[in-house]
Amino acid sequence: MAKFVYRFDEGNAGMKGLLGGKGANLAEMTNLGLPVPKGFTVTTEACMKYLETQQLTDELIHEVKQALANLQKETGKAFSSATDLLLLSVRSGSKFSMPGMMDTILNLGLNDENVERLAQETNDERFAYDCYRRLLQMFGNVVYEIDSSRFENYLDFFKTKHGYESDADFTAEDLKEVVTCFKSIYMESKKKEFPQNPETQLFDAIEAVFRSWNNGRAKVYRSIHDIPDDLGTAVNVQLMVFGNSGSNSATGVAFTRNPATGEKKIFGEYLLNAQGEDVVAGIRTPNPMSELATAMPEAYTEFEKVAARLEAHYEDMQDIEFTIEKGKLYFLQTRNGKRTAQSAFKIAVDLVKEGITTKEKSLMKIDPNSVNQLLHPVFSDEDLKSATLVSAAGLPASPGAASGKIYFDADAAKEHALLGEKVILVRQETSPEDIQGMVSSEAIVTSRGGMTSHAAVVARGMGTCCVAGCGDLEIDEFHKTVTYPGGQLSEGDVISVDGSRGEIYLGDIPTTVTEEGENFRTIMSWADEFARLSVRMNAETVNDIKAGLAFGAAGIGLARTEHMFFGPERLLEMRRFILANTVEERKHALQQLLPFQQADFEQIFKLAGERPVVIRLLDPPLHEFLPTNRKELEHIAKELDMPVQELERRVIDLKEINPMLGHRGCRLAMTYPELYEMQAEAIIRSAVRLKQAGQNVQPEIMIPLVGMTRELTDLTERLNKKIAAVLAETGDSISYTIGTMIELPRACFIADELAEAAGFFSFGTNDLTQMTYGFSRDDSAKYINQYLEDGVLAQDPFQTLDESGVGELIRIAVEKARAEKPSLKIGVCGELGGDAESIAFFHDVGLNYVSCSPFRIPVARIAAAQSAIRGVERN
Amino acid sequence: MAKFVYRFDEGNAGMKGLLGGKGANLAEMTNLGLPVPKGFTVTTEACMKYLETQQLTDELIHEVKQALANLQKETGKAFSSATDLLLLSVRSGSKFSMPGMMDTILNLGLNDENVERLAQETNDERFAYDCYRRLLQMFGNVVYEIDSSRFENYLDFFKTKHGYESDADFTAEDLKEVVTCFKSIYMESKKKEFPQNPETQLFDAIEAVFRSWNNGRAKVYRSIHDIPDDLGTAVNVQLMVFGNSGSNSATGVAFTRNPATGEKKIFGEYLLNAQGEDVVAGIRTPNPMSELATAMPEAYTEFEKVAARLEAHYEDMQDIEFTIEKGKLYFLQTRNGKRTAQSAFKIAVDLVKEGITTKEKSLMKIDPNSVNQLLHPVFSDEDLKSATLVSAAGLPASPGAASGKIYFDADAAKEHALLGEKVILVRQETSPEDIQGMVSSEAIVTSRGGMTSHAAVVARGMGTCCVAGCGDLEIDEFHKTVTYPGGQLSEGDVISVDGSRGEIYLGDIPTTVTEEGENFRTIMSWADEFARLSVRMNAETVNDIKAGLAFGAAGIGLARTEHMFFGPERLLEMRRFILANTVEERKHALQQLLPFQQADFEQIFKLAGERPVVIRLLDPPLHEFLPTNRKELEHIAKELDMPVQELERRVIDLKEINPMLGHRGCRLAMTYPELYEMQAEAIIRSAVRLKQAGQNVQPEIMIPLVGMTRELTDLTERLNKKIAAVLAETGDSISYTIGTMIELPRACFIADELAEAAGFFSFGTNDLTQMTYGFSRDDSAKYINQYLEDGVLAQDPFQTLDESGVGELIRIAVEKARAEKPSLKIGVCGELGGDAESIAFFHDVGLNYVSCSPFRIPVARIAAAQSAIRGVERN
Repeated sequence: MAKFVYRFDEGNAGMKGLLGGKGANLAEMTNLGLPVPKGFTVTTEACMKYLETQQLTDELIHEVKQALANLQKETGKAFSSATDLLLLSVRSGSKFSMPGMMDTILNLGLNDENVERLAQETNDERFAYDCYRRLLQMFGNVVYEIDSSRFENYLDFFKTKHGYESDADFTAEDLKEVVTCFKSIYMESKKKEFPQNPETQLFDAIEAVFRSWNNGRAKVYRSIHDIPDDLGTAVNVQLMVFGNSGSNSATGVAFTRNPATGEKKIFGEYLLNAQGEDVVAGIRTPNPMSELATAMPEAYTEFEKVAARLEAHYEDMQDIEFTIEKGKLYFLQTRNGKRTAQSAFKIAVDLVKEGITTKEKSLMKIDPNSVNQLLHPVFSDEDLKSATLVSAAGLPASPGAASGKIYFDADAAKEHALLGEKVILVRQETSPEDIQGMVSSEAIVTSRGGMTSHAAVVARGMGTCCVAGCGDLEIDEFHKTVTYPGGQLSEGDVISVDGSRGEIYLGDIPTTVTEEGENFRTIMSWADEFARLSVRMNAETVNDIKAGLAFGAAGIGLARTEHMFFGPERLLEMRRFILANTVEERKHALQQLLPFQQADFEQIFKLAGERPVVIRLLDPPLHEFLPTNRKELEHIAKELDMPVQELERRVIDLKEINPMLGHRGCRLAMTYPELYEMQAEAIIRSAVRLKQAGQNVQPEIMIPLVGMTRELTDLTERLNKKIAAVLAETGDSISYTIGTMIELPRACFIADELAEAAGFFSFGTNDLTQMTYGFSRDDSAKYINQYLEDGVLAQDPFQTLDESGVGELIRIAVEKARAEKPSLKIGVCGELGGDAESIAFFHDVGLNYVSCSPFRIPVARIAAAQSAIRGVERN
Repeated sequence: MAKFVYRFDEGNAGMKGLLGGKGANLAEMTNLGLPVPKGFTVTTEACMKYLETQQLTDELIHEVKQALANLQKETGKAFSSATDLLLLSVRSGSKFSMPGMMDTILNLGLNDENVERLAQETNDERFAYDCYRRLLQMFGNVVYEIDSSRFENYLDFFKTKHGYESDADFTAEDLKEVVTCFKSIYMESKKKEFPQNPETQLFDAIEAVFRSWNNGRAKVYRSIHDIPDDLGTAVNVQLMVFGNSGSNSATGVAFTRNPATGEKKIFGEYLLNAQGEDVVAGIRTPNPMSELATAMPEAYTEFEKVAARLEAHYEDMQDIEFTIEKGKLYFLQTRNGKRTAQSAFKIAVDLVKEGITTKEKSLMKIDPNSVNQLLHPVFSDEDLKSATLVSAAGLPASPGAASGKIYFDADAAKEHALLGEKVILVRQETSPEDIQGMVSSEAIVTSRGGMTSHAAVVARGMGTCCVAGCGDLEIDEFHKTVTYPGGQLSEGDVISVDGSRGEIYLGDIPTTVTEEGENFRTIMSWADEFARLSVRMNAETVNDIKAGLAFGAAGIGLARTEHMFFGPERLLEMRRFILANTVEERKHALQQLLPFQQADFEQIFKLAGERPVVIRLLDPPLHEFLPTNRKELEHIAKELDMPVQELERRVIDLKEINPMLGHRGCRLAMTYPELYEMQAEAIIRSAVRLKQAGQNVQPEIMIPLVGMTRELTDLTERLNKKIAAVLAETGDSISYTIGTMIELPRACFIADELAEAAGFFSFGTNDLTQMTYGFSRDDSAKYINQYLEDGVLAQDPFQTLDESGVGELIRIAVEKARAEKPSLKIGVCGELGGDAESIAFFHDVGLNYVSCSPFRIPVARIAAAQSAIRGVERN
């Protein structure tokens, strides 16, 4: 029989799946002997069972009651004790950290009688009623789903009425009135009373936490972070400790190292005389942890000691929630801390240097996608000098820099982003309801809240640039304006946000990319020690190739040749080629293109050095090179000396209803073999020139869109013949290979035949995904986005490999190909080649390399290393 | 060690693969004791070996010499004997009959000396020199590849010079001069002498036959008839018998039954005093076989006796080549005769009735595709009454009726057909060079040649309508005109050809389809006895459904709903639906469409009776329902009461670059679920109405283009809910199922998940083929045709299933689906459902039904029966 409830001393850190991250860590800390308020955890299995049956089972009720009895026995506290009142916190906690997503209830156990008991016990009536009104507020919102604004509006109204500045001005009498009114809000909006029985409160709260697993915000967060829907959340029931029980009490959140820079120093914030949610919600601006050392030196010293112990224990930087109740320090949560990419690299390197952990473990802790943050853009100092500052009062909450139009609510931001605008979400503070707008934004700006506020945490997690707590902005969400020291901005105005400095500027400022540092290089060299997949770049321009080499590309996995035909002189000859009526005319036009192509390839090879270079022969349909509007047609007709009607007819002839499935790729060469022959000649001639200059190049000639064996064998034969003729003429030898792109489902099924003929394979995952799903990338954004939102698609298959369909085809192709030719070199080019999750698949299926855009290369190198380390762990 | 040469008495009819059809049948006839001139066969293996190494092996040369020595010994004839001169015929013969495709050499062995010996032996100098010039002509053309027109032009020139009417006017002296001149053509065009050594002639001839396997015509024929390229041809070397040795000699081709009607009576043609190729080439118009009974009664009686024996032996109608040399009858070839579909059905039924063969064997002998011929169109008697006759002098060489523009050479015909014209090829006579033009034509007309001429045989084989030997047409191929008794026609003029009557009319005449007869119904009932696959129709219009039912459809496998939205009233509402801004507006528009849909479905169900009906919910992208040109846009904007700019913007928004891969199929319903809900409601409401009227209908609701499980489960849930509501309202129960079309590669890989949710599967082979190959049907004709010509594609995958790719996906899907749900009903709709070869695959893979267009149903029923019989034979 399943056990649904675990005392904290029954669990450990390894039980995250069953107890959730929070529960498992509370158990681990308890067993480490740290000061953790006692409690128990209701398992995620109980949650899933509840969601299935929509009710708490008798077994579960029985186990909770037993755990409660045990808690009372151990602590001597009871729900109606006059001297030792039992009050509980109830918090959710799933396997993966979902900050702000799930709901929390504090002070559970209070009721009309107990609030008086608490007042007597603490001798602080104001404190007791403040706790009670918080319970009413949280319970009403979480359990009865009463809109939280109803409670807040009433508080605001009350403050205005009495001319109060802040919550601190409330008297005990005021709070009694608030409590009365809050109870009436229950009746009015839900026709329900607040349950006076503490056990009823507890079971209602557990059910509400369970249900909250499936609330909209949670679903969106899971979808964004690829968290499965069937994990469920655990519920942690724990003795309350009160950070709001006076001036020698406090509550805070702190990291063992600086999550933005990686500096080895306690970093965080606390609020004196406050309860936990006050810090996270960003309602009061908290004090930095350094001040705690002066304010409560004893507690601070103990905190430092425990923090070091936890870090060594978990072999990672920790994010710790604590409360100090009347001078006594309690630990409420610890977990591996979220951090910026920059600090992640520093921490990973430092932990190894300090002997706390190993290279492998350190590598495994880096989120490969976070590397993108490292490479996030910045504004140049020069540009900033001439820019107009809006505010420099904000916190540098998430690094990066971006410009865009400002919007004041999440829906507007999302909507305008869908229309293709770059948008920036500007709000007083963000809440979980804003998630979708945050995802759509280039940057996030808030006027309230600290480095651990909702906006800051979420933005860092997404790698979106964020300035938080920018106090000199007056944000009017209703009138959609923001007033700053020098003026006012309205919806749609453009600003630039520097999340690394916490600054905001007027107008659009160009961005450049940061230089990566020493730690980055160290991590990358470790990655290469472990990785088995090599990482190439998709690049053909000078800038891209240089960037890719700087990021450590092992070669070029995809040099596209289509852009090479767009220079004005080239385009004219290309058009002559397309419109030729005879083979001779075609060959003549190609002869004019040959020197251009040769120069193109020479440049690529020169930059790539002796690294392998895959050159894809021309892929797009020919009509892409022809004009469509009348004016251009007339111009071109004149240039080509042909009647405009004739040109128009030819353009119409070449038009296709579905160009993606049209006359393109190797099909062009099956019709006009001279085209690929010219390209092969240019490749080989440029290789010869470089060889004569002392550089050995490794051309890998790639034939795209092969679906039939004869396409590959016929074209390979022709190209080999052409190349042999060129080499016979020059008297040189060049070691080259001819391979094919695997991008049609059919190619996967005939991979054995293709392998026999091919020098290499490279999976073209973009087209393969298009064909497998029947999705046109050009058109599908609309419904793919909806599918992602609705969870019909768990992930965008163009961003992360679809293992069931596309992955199955790749697996079939690799198996067939390797059965025919075990040594065949197989790679992948296309966007999935730079996606960490997809790379794990490519490693497992046995590819030789992945190729991606230059900026994805560090991500890919780390993902490749992690795949290899994971592979070793498995065996 | 392989044996490369077989004496006729060493082989049998079962050895077609090794000896070719002709060789195997010559062997069989020899062993039956029939009068067959002695000889031997060089195997197809020897051919493939030759084509590989490009030379005759020593073993082969040795074996041929031995066989030759043996032939000399057995017959007492020798290459230089003055009294018993050895003369040979050399003919190709591959496994499958390829009429006119391969080359033949007669009279081999003649040289400058032997021609004199033959003259003395036969006491007929003219005959001897006529044989010699034929040898020179055939050998020159076949072995040395001298253009045959060079010889023919010289003969024409000689005739003109001497004022001769026909070849018969040539004297012996004339022929000596012709021989001298022919030999000089060798020297002049090829710098080679005609080889005087008979053995050299033989080996050269064998090589030439081998080589001819790969000539262009042979390749095209194989590609059209799906004959593999690696079979090779055998070479039959046989004693000459001379049908041209006087007036008691003859040569002919005859069928044991009438190949056009099936009538049980010898049917064919012969020429007195002629050699075999004179009949086939259609140069002289031959006499009907019935006249042979009078001309040579003895030979005719023997022919009848042997013909009956051969028919009983082969259990099929025979096509026999014979020669009568000075009164003695020889059999040169027998094979199962090609026939029209009409006669095939009669013969198949008669052979069973006569006790000659079994139902199964008879069914297996029917080419399912030939059924199309049966259902070939005809002109109505009424239309013909008012039509202007061009000629009624032609032979009804291949049944059917067609109209089109006339062209006088194959290239022009092909070219214009590719431009979408309906073309008719008009030629004096056709030759193998014309194959591609014949394939492209709707009808073929010749002015010369009989029922067994090249044009007639090929046209019947292709099921193309043909009028042959239409003697009152003067066809001027050079000036591209045809003069007929009442006037003259030029290239591009339109005529109508009635191949069933042998008549030609001016202009375009509409066609209708013939009524099938008693034999057809008998065969169909036999087919249903054996078939396991049931055959449904793809149909939704009254006419199509009626036609399908008449052809024996077991239900509807695909009723498309897209055309139902194109009536003017419907289109307006459909546009309102598409352009609606709110769910309410959308629902309102759909409410207007509901009664139309309900009436549509009611009509379909009423016609289908209690047979199952698959209705596919709306599939095409919505932009197909919107106007594109300015004028229409303005009109519609007015009708819909919206600004034209707004309408234009919406139309542009909905446009897609690759509509095939766009927002269509179930993706529409994921965005606008109300659409499918309305359709489901209409289906169920119409089913309820019919049920109330006493008819139980079986709606099978099909959701198209599913690629993700959630698409199917979400939509199924919604539809079930909607249907439950409708049924609750009416208080009825309808047994319906909801299934899905499998038409995306990804759907095949998740077929297990889909099977769990689906009531049935139907493979949409059109889309599945498009995705697997990355071919857009709308655009790919150009390169697919080239691929077929070049043999890159063996078959058009839209016509015949691609087993390696698409078939593999189907196999995977069926296996996964049946593993999950063994009882799942799985069918196929799409054009492949009516293709005989594909049906064999669908049977083998275990589908439940195929569905095809009404006119393909008989083909499908026969193919289904054959698949089942073949399956039984295999086990």
